[in-house]
Amino acid sequence: MITVTGTFTVKKNKIEEFQTGTLELQNASLNTDKGCIEYKFHQQQDAPENFFVYEIWDEMASLELHGASQHFNKFSKLLEGNLDKELDIRIYNTI
Amino acid sequence: MITVTGTFTVKKNKIEEFQTGTLELQNASLNTDKGCIEYKFHQQQDAPENFFVYEIWDEMASLELHGASQHFNKFSKLLEGNLDKELDIRIYNTI
Repeated sequence: MITVTGTFTVKKNKIEEFQTGTLELQNASLNTDKGCIEYKFHQQQDAPENFFVYEIWDEMASLELHGASQHFNKFSKLLEGNLDKELDIRIYNTI
Repeated sequence: MITVTGTFTVKKNKIEEFQTGTLELQNASLNTDKGCIEYKFHQQQDAPENFFVYEIWDEMASLELHGASQHFNKFSKLLEGNLDKELDIRIYNTI
């Protein structure tokens, strides 16, 4: 199992658009991606332009398939030009 | 419900000590803290000195009680003088 986290900061006039877009990606990933165990987006309480995603995958191959999926590519397009702080992706192992 | 994340970087000669210390805190929090729904430590795959914790609490009051607990204070002492990058704590809401 691998855990993936992602943090990014969106332009303040885009927050609502990302609330919709993140939920779309979240649902599509959980419902259609093989090996997707957890996929949960969050917004920082005191800074709603800061988004965070916590994902758990059964193996790396599943994550790679996800990266090539239509729903992930759609979200990647939404990110383009709409970020104030770049996407920071990290891959973890649980201890 | 609230989600809390924490990231920190330990001195490279302290990694093992933190593997033990984080598991101790994780187990004590999950087993004894009221309202602790999730408490999971991770190490970054390509940089094991980078630790990440993902916590879910039923409400802020439970998190505050946790912050005053013996096991949390014990871990705070372990952090002192052993970090290469300060603890970055963020509080999130799920979307």
